[in-house]
Amino acid sequence: MQYPNGIKKEFVNLNTHSNRGMNLEADLNDTNEYYRYSDIAIVHKKPTPITINKVDYKSRRDAVIKEAHFKVPSTTDYNGIYKGKYIDFEAKETKSLTSFPLNNIHNHQVTHLEKIYNHGGIGFIIVRFTKLNKTYLLFIEDLLYFIENNKRASIPISYFDEKGYIIKEGINPRLDYLKVIDKKGVEL
Amino acid sequence: MQYPNGIKKEFVNLNTHSNRGMNLEADLNDTNEYYRYSDIAIVHKKPTPITINKVDYKSRRDAVIKEAHFKVPSTTDYNGIYKGKYIDFEAKETKSLTSFPLNNIHNHQVTHLEKIYNHGGIGFIIVRFTKLNKTYLLFIEDLLYFIENNKRASIPISYFDEKGYIIKEGINPRLDYLKVIDKKGVEL
Repeated sequence: MQYPNGIKKEFVNLNTHSNRGMNLEADLNDTNEYYRYSDIAIVHKKPTPITINKVDYKSRRDAVIKEAHFKVPSTTDYNGIYKGKYIDFEAKETKSLTSFPLNNIHNHQVTHLEKIYNHGGIGFIIVRFTKLNKTYLLFIEDLLYFIENNKRASIPISYFDEKGYIIKEGINPRLDYLKVIDKKGVEL
Repeated sequence: MQYPNGIKKEFVNLNTHSNRGMNLEADLNDTNEYYRYSDIAIVHKKPTPITINKVDYKSRRDAVIKEAHFKVPSTTDYNGIYKGKYIDFEAKETKSLTSFPLNNIHNHQVTHLEKIYNHGGIGFIIVRFTKLNKTYLLFIEDLLYFIENNKRASIPISYFDEKGYIIKEGINPRLDYLKVIDKKGVEL
């Protein structure tokens, strides 16, 4: 069964920490939980944006949403603070073996990350090639460089190898993406 | 008709910019839109957190949520970046003439703001006394000071007058809360 972008998460059991082969979102939720627990960074995933049409309102605790629709997100899924810096990113999986289709990310999400960068924040995307079992971090400035200098509708994996950073998988944290930020030597 | 915390927003028409007497949330949405449009700051309201139980899934575009429940939010409603700094806040209205009941804010939201402060971010609450037509900004450090030094279940308005900052209402922006941050002289 397929769900619209970002809805699968609601069904993920966050307690299955030892479960290998989880999806990217579960891995990031686990990672962010670890970062928060260890007081390394405060990063949360935003709730799925919806428009609510009908609420069955019995009491404050028992309200049930009876009709709602998924909205196009106006920002990215994750943001927070690390070493005093604002960080903001979007995470996507692809089954492709060769490239990441750009239509996986909304234009206004790219624009949002660009604004974050211009305001002094750290913006990036995390892309997992599920069939290759490789997860990359690509900073927004490198994503923008690709978009501005290419007519292609997808980013070849060679560009991730050249400009992106591999995020290694581990136990705790599952996906230590902050290590990439440290490595890049962003002035923090 | 009453809705659980934070759900009213979904029904607000954001296009009624000239509509005076809007609620705090609509005022803040307008203000944040102005800040983004003017490239002063990038601040967004997070979607209402829900747990989805049933989705009627005809196609990716036509998915309809048929049953969902409101979740207790794990963070605050608003966050973003201003002058390179991470900012984070919660906004609440009260009809009280004399004090702000602390049970309007979840404990873990206070804890969240405290963590943001400890990590070098700017955390605060915005409280509107609707019947007095007064809107205050109170920084998390002053909120924590009150909680740690009082047994009271509500913050008297005199404490807001002493430690908080009045946010003046205007046309554009509606509620210039960033001016308070400038005024306080937080090192940015």
